[in-house]
Parts: sequence; C-alpha cells; structure tokens
Amino acid sequence: MIRIESYVRGAWHTAGADPRPLHDPTTEAAIAECGSAGIDFGAVVTHGRDVGGPALRSVGFATRAGWLKALSQAIHERRDELIAVSARNGGATRGDAKFDIDGATGTLAAYAKLGAELGEVNFLPDGDGAQLGRTGRFWGQHVRTPRPGVALHVNAFNFPCWGMAEKLAQSLLAGVPAISKPGTPTALVAWRCAQAIVASGVLPDGAFQFVAGSTGDLLDHLGPQDHLAFTGSAATGAKLKGHARLIGTNCRVTLEADSLNAAILGPDVDTDADVWGTFLGNLVVDMTQKTGQKCTAVRRILVPEAMLDAVVEELKVRLGAVVIGDPADEATRMGPLTDAAALATVQTGMRQLLAVSEALTGGPERIRDRGYFVAPTLLLANDIDADVLHELEVFGPCATILPYTGDAAEAIRLANRGGGGLVASLYSNDKRWSEDVVLGIAPWHGRLWIANDKVADQALQPGMVLPVTIHGGPGRAGGGEELGGRFGMEFYMQRTALQGDQGFVGRRFGKPGSEPA
Amino acid sequence: MIRIESYVRGAWHTAGADPRPLHDPTTEAAIAECGSAGIDFGAVVTHGRDVGGPALRSVGFATRAGWLKALSQAIHERRDELIAVSARNGGATRGDAKFDIDGATGTLAAYAKLGAELGEVNFLPDGDGAQLGRTGRFWGQHVRTPRPGVALHVNAFNFPCWGMAEKLAQSLLAGVPAISKPGTPTALVAWRCAQAIVASGVLPDGAFQFVAGSTGDLLDHLGPQDHLAFTGSAATGAKLKGHARLIGTNCRVTLEADSLNAAILGPDVDTDADVWGTFLGNLVVDMTQKTGQKCTAVRRILVPEAMLDAVVEELKVRLGAVVIGDPADEATRMGPLTDAAALATVQTGMRQLLAVSEALTGGPERIRDRGYFVAPTLLLANDIDADVLHELEVFGPCATILPYTGDAAEAIRLANRGGGGLVASLYSNDKRWSEDVVLGIAPWHGRLWIANDKVADQALQPGMVLPVTIHGGPGRAGGGEELGGRFGMEFYMQRTALQGDQGFVGRRFGKPGSEPA
Repeated sequence: MIRIESYVRGAWHTAGADPRPLHDPTTEAAIAECGSAGIDFGAVVTHGRDVGGPALRSVGFATRAGWLKALSQAIHERRDELIAVSARNGGATRGDAKFDIDGATGTLAAYAKLGAELGEVNFLPDGDGAQLGRTGRFWGQHVRTPRPGVALHVNAFNFPCWGMAEKLAQSLLAGVPAISKPGTPTALVAWRCAQAIVASGVLPDGAFQFVAGSTGDLLDHLGPQDHLAFTGSAATGAKLKGHARLIGTNCRVTLEADSLNAAILGPDVDTDADVWGTFLGNLVVDMTQKTGQKCTAVRRILVPEAMLDAVVEELKVRLGAVVIGDPADEATRMGPLTDAAALATVQTGMRQLLAVSEALTGGPERIRDRGYFVAPTLLLANDIDADVLHELEVFGPCATILPYTGDAAEAIRLANRGGGGLVASLYSNDKRWSEDVVLGIAPWHGRLWIANDKVADQALQPGMVLPVTIHGGPGRAGGGEELGGRFGMEFYMQRTALQGDQGFVGRRFGKPGSEPA
Repeated sequence: MIRIESYVRGAWHTAGADPRPLHDPTTEAAIAECGSAGIDFGAVVTHGRDVGGPALRSVGFATRAGWLKALSQAIHERRDELIAVSARNGGATRGDAKFDIDGATGTLAAYAKLGAELGEVNFLPDGDGAQLGRTGRFWGQHVRTPRPGVALHVNAFNFPCWGMAEKLAQSLLAGVPAISKPGTPTALVAWRCAQAIVASGVLPDGAFQFVAGSTGDLLDHLGPQDHLAFTGSAATGAKLKGHARLIGTNCRVTLEADSLNAAILGPDVDTDADVWGTFLGNLVVDMTQKTGQKCTAVRRILVPEAMLDAVVEELKVRLGAVVIGDPADEATRMGPLTDAAALATVQTGMRQLLAVSEALTGGPERIRDRGYFVAPTLLLANDIDADVLHELEVFGPCATILPYTGDAAEAIRLANRGGGGLVASLYSNDKRWSEDVVLGIAPWHGRLWIANDKVADQALQPGMVLPVTIHGGPGRAGGGEELGGRFGMEFYMQRTALQGDQGFVGRRFGKPGSEPA
C-alpha cells in the first residue's frame, strides 16, 4: 500500500495514525493511504512565513519567474508517469490527465512569462500617478507589494496538478510561500506532482510545503498577512470563510465554489451556422471530460424552443457514442467518477433533478458492476423555473436542457438564476442579442465565453480556464478571483497609496517610462 | 426634543418605540432622539434593489456624475447650518465641522469629475485585451459592470457628513443604490445632511435611503449582489463580517477599522530641516483635530533618541497652547469627545497605555465639571515593545512617543507591529532611508505619507483622506479599501472576463481608442 507523504519544514513526513484509504475508482481496490497526523501546523506556518517568504522576496519577480519555468519543466518531464497514476487515482482518461497536467505546466509557464516582463523588482506600480496638492509637487502613486505571510492553498480533487500549479504560480510569483493541500481523493496524483516540485530543487526552503490529508488546526495559526485560497464546495468554503481566526485577523480569503454554468444558444442559430457544431461539440466535451467533474462544466443548456428537437436528437447520438470504461484504456473517452463519495453525491443529485425533469440519456444508476461508473446524463426540464435546476450543482456527467423563448431578457433571467457563476457560454451571430445578454449577465459571472461563426473553429472550449483571464465568480461561485495574469497576483499583494514628493514617489515608484519631468 | 428621522422607501419615517437620546457633549443636555423601530428592513432592501438600482443604471456614469455634483452643491448650500449643528451634536469645532462637510462635498465633486470622464456608459474596460487562441481572432477583455444589488453603508460617528458622502460617491457613481446608516452619536448631523440630499430631488427614488438607529434584521436580507461597507471598530466589523447570511451568500464586505497610525521621524532630520516644523505641526493637528477622533490620526510617534528632548519640548509648548472649550466658540481649537461612551472608552484606554508609559501632557481626567472634555494627552513609552502600545487604539486626543534608534529596520519593525494600519507618515530627506522604510512597511499599510523638505510647505496633512488615493489597510485596519478614484468603484462592480471574437469583444468592450485593427 502506498503511503502518501506530506512535505513540511523541508522534509517528507509520513502520517502516523488513522490514514484514509484511497481507491482506484475503476476497480474499487484500495491503492494508497493519506493522512497528516503528527504534523505541527503552527510550525509549518512559521516555516513558510519566516523561512520561505524572506527567501522568495530576497529576489525579484524575474528570478521567481525563472523558478516557475523550471517547475513547469520539472512537472512536464514526469508527464507520462502522471498520466498513468491519474488513471488509477481519480479515474482520469489519458485526455483528462493531459488536460490537468498540461494545464499545470502551461499556467506555470504563462506566469513565468509574465514575471519576466515585470523585471527584477519586488513592487508593482498600480495605475497612474496623480497630483494631490495645489501643484504637481505633492504627488500620489499606488503600488502593490508582496504580503509577508503565507498562503494556504486548498485544492479540489478534480484537478490535482492544474489546481495546485495555478495557485502556486500566482502566489510564488507574487513572493508569497505556499502550503498546498490537495483534495484527498486524488492526493496520490498531487503527491507525485509535489515530488517533482521538491525533487527539482528549484525553490528555496519553505517556499513550498505540501499537506496531504487534514490541515488540522492550521487555520488557527493564520493571521493578517496570510491568505487562504480555496477551491471546492460552497458549503466547505463558507465554513472556512467564517472561521473566527480568519475573520478576526482579516486574513485574506478567496473562494471558488459551486457554479451552475449555462450554455445559451441564440435564437438566430440554425443547423447551418458554424457555431451550431461548436455548441454541440462543447456540450459533449463538458459533460464527459473529467466525467463532468469540472467546476466550469455546463449544467444548464438554454435552447430556443424551435431548436429543441434538433439539439436533443444530435446530443443523444453524440453522447451515445462516448466510449466509457477503464481510463487506462486508450479507446476510453469517459472514465468513472473519482470515488465512492462522488458517485453517491452525483446519484443523489441526479435524482433531485429528475423530480423536475426527464432523462434523455443516462440516469443515476451505475452502469458497471464494479467501479464508480454512470452514463452521460442529459435531462430535459419539465419546469424551467424549478429552483433545483438553478441551485444544485451535480458534479458529474450531467446537464439539463431548459427550453426558452430565445429572447435576450429571458436568457438573462434564467442565466442569472444560478445566483453567481464561473462561466456562461453564448452562441450567436446576432451582435445586438449577444451584447444585450453580455451586459445583462456579466455582473453575475466571472467569465463570459461568446462564440460566433468567426471564431467557431478556433475558440478554446468554455470549460478551459486560461491563465490570462480571470477564474472565479460572484455569489454561489464563491465571490473570489484567481488568474487573469497580473490580476491573479493582486490577492497576494497589498495595494498601498504613496503620497509625497513627485521627485521621489513618482520617479522611484511610478511606472517605468512614465516618470514625471 | 428633536426626533431624528429615517428616509426609507421614498418617505421620512419617525421611530416608534424606544428611541435613544443624543446629548450635547459640551453641556450634557439631551438634544435629540434616534431610533429605527417600525422599519421593515426587508422592504428597504427590496426597494433599493428593485427600484433604486434599475433607475440608477438606466443612465450611465456621466449622468450619475452630474447627480453627484448636484448633491455636492446641495450639501454645500447648507454648510453654515451643518457647522452649527455639528457643534451641538458631536462637539465639532468650526474647523472640525468644515473638515467634515468640505470633505463630503469635495469627495462628491471629485467623483463627479471622474464620472464625467467615464462617459455615458455602464461598463468599464479593465486592463488591455489579450490574444487567447492561436491567432488574434479569439480575444479576451476584462470589463467591470455595476452589480445589481444594494449597498449598506455603515458609517462611523466621527465624520457624519464626509463618511456618508464618500461611500455614497463611489456606490452611486458605480450604479449601486445605497442604504446609509450614520453612527448614532452624530446621527443628527447626518440627518441634516440626508435632508439636504433628499430635498435636492436629485436622485431617483430608491437610490438613497437613510436609516438612523439600528439596522435591525437588515443583514438577513442581503445577498450575493449586495455590499456592506463598514467603518467603525474592529470588534463590530468582525461581528458583521462573520454574519452567517453574508458568509453564506458571499455578499461583499469591506471594513475600515482600528489603526495605530505611526508617524516616523527620520534620523537625518534636525531642527533646521523644513520637515521638522511639518512634523510638529501635523502631530498637533492629528492629536487635536476632531478631538483626536479620526481613524487616520497618529497614535504612535517614532522619534530617534537623539531628537527626543527637542520633540517633547516643542510638543509640550504647542499642545499647551491649544484652546479647549465650547466648540461653538470661534476661539476654540479642540472641543469635547463626542459622547459619554466615547469619554469612558478613551479614559479606560489612556489608563491602559499609562501602565507602560508616562504622561507628558494631559491624562485621563476630565478637565471640566460639565461636558466630555479631556486634555491633549501626549505619552512617552517606558517600554516601546509593550503590546498595548501597538494594539490599543485610544480614539481621542492621545498619542505615545516611542523613542527608537533611527535605523530603518527598527522603524519598520515598530511600525508593522501595529498589525495593519490605514496610514503611516515619514519625515526624512534621506531617500535611501525613506525607500527602505517604504518598501518595508508598505504591505502593512493602505497609505504611506512621505514628507521631505521639498513638499514640507505644501503636503496635505497625513490625516486627510483624499478621493484619488485609497483609504483602508490590511489586518487590524479591516482589510478593506475605499476611494482611490476608480479603485473605489471596484467594490461595487463585478470584474468579468469576456472571451470571443476580437471584432466583437475587442471593439465593443475594449478601451476606446485601443480597438484592434
């Protein structure tokens, strides 16, 4: 039995008592154990804050960017090994695993590129300078500086590599040491990735720590310059955010939680449009990639009533052709759910949705005697206004079609009923309709993906999270923000207004090239 | 007896049962009553969200900017009346009242100017566009749109006009209706200001509501698109931030709380330097203006040991010359504390500080038989590392001198022991020392005010909060941000990544003048 280790205070740690077993979701065999018993979490925080932080900030953005590039390469070198272990721990197909691993290395590389542009300094001018007094001599300039605390990264199980790497990229580039906690169900993959990071020898001591299993009393040791970046369920997120110590010290918290992502087909799109195929293709990818266990996957499909039959017919065919099976098998396009708990939750959720919808494909039943397998489950709403359709994220290969009028106002109303989402996707060649929907739903979403025929053949899928555009959304989605290039570093830096002599404040801390005369 | 009213759902409301009395702090006479009994807070929230919000967003930034300008004028027209009532309710001298009222009208005017520049639209491009796909066709652009909720503004008692107006300026310009709750001890002044706003007839129905007294169960009605902007004590701030409804819905919360602001005299400054006089003058202003009841007032004065005697001597003389008395008297430079509770808290706090310091002037004793008067109280620390000096904000005319080595590292260490502050002020002509201190304390502060001889005669005081530079600070200071021009509107707007055809996303939502070819 593999014993997953943590990496704390510069050394690997094997859990003492009561590790939790991890199972291969295809065979249900126990394959590893995970636990954090015996770790002194106060010392972990102190090690990061007092050893890792100063080491990171003893160099500037450009040097740290070089470290990110090296980490990206170190993980990429273990790509095949990570693909193999992702099949056994988590049930990822080869395609799913590549999506996770290449997402990790790509995001690290993107932040490496950004960091190289920022130069070998440790602050960033923020906005333009401004005259404050009666002449230009008394001057204001905002800057961002790295916060001298630690970051606790609590990751979700669905992206063990990408989730860890995208949080690390922003945090480390900003100059903030990280304590990375993987989602336990896929901690074996995350551990392999952490091993690559540690073995690379790239990072200074204390910059990266890795806690597999519970974080114990770690939150009690966080303070005013620390950070908690969480990805997971809204319920857990709320519990963490409401922790008395985090509230009392104004520790920074960002959450990425539930999202009932909507795909909205415009009323102008017929089967001749280029975006028609894009729409159908993306729906199949979103429902089946990672077995639907993707926070950005579509959950609600808004289809103009006139196009309902065509959508249903096409999706039934395409979903019916998806090869389900052992993720290690090259032919497999969709594997099992990650673990028994995920299966149970998905089955319960599907049954709740079925109270107000009918199944066009699939359903909550297991489709194999062994392994946590369900079929892609496309539902058709009987009542498009039923609360459960807009509030319950079923984290599996499941989405519901909501037939609607095609009116922009109705699309806006339905999309926004999700109560705050990570992404909504629009498919239309009608600019006026698209603009109305964009402005109507933007405040409720962190990202809008808008396809017309001009980008039908080259738009990356809406479920992809890119390093240069933000990830996160208001309300139910957690209210947080990550990525978006430099925006993603803001969480780890303090914005400070500097006021003083323009010759000092403007010249020394303003944007290079925009120095006052 | 004056009965202070609330303005809710388009009408003035007089409290029913159990209003709280307000006293003139000079005479201790009861002068008004304040309470919110009988208000249906759920209906107040709905009125703002469903009536005020759509009306605000039916126009663009430029029109709303015009409204702010008109509000600024409407308040300015009642300046004399507001100055008079500020003396009786709150104990503000003429200078204190002007600081409050002119701050209000100035901030509204500054946001009016900003809004006019933003044009008659309802979104703001955020940052530059970026290529997302393999060609420039698939394009990303971030935008900010007004959030379709309400904002609850919980203001502090010390700035009844400015506090209300600065929050209103940002919220209304962004397009978010406000429910403004004044600090109860000075609710009479705030009510007069609210009367000016309502009587002006400038704002659409529902854009501005005013709740004098408790907000009852209002928080229970807030949701994912709503906002709570709080200014007050850290303890109350933490209670609000931890409210289950706000946590559960990811309602946005920003806090401005306690701050142990430090003034730091550089080791290079002697009595011949221009900043020497600036340093002394600012300390006296900070300690006596608003009777020291200013969140940005200096609490810790870091003085190089070599300059200690000179600082003490000068401050004793200057503080001894401050005329204390009835704020309505033109000769008065410092009035009483705002109410009996403020007096009791200040007295208790001074006694706690005196456990580790000695009084050079003043002390916790009342200096008049009637009225909540204390003397400017300058303390000299016996133990510069005593926790209480860095953690207890005594919200009155009280500051403590901490003699230090003059070393940048020691200045940084001591300033940062405040655990997060609104502002620190530096006085030095040594650029290297200033730069070291700036970079060392920036992450712990929202604003740094840096004087050298070149700006000694024209730098606005560090205690002044300017609309173009941010106000707020990490940790103990609440972790929030307000003002800073456009930065202050970010709280009321949602950042959304738009991804799609460059010809649509870039042209329609990018920065004007930066359209792709």
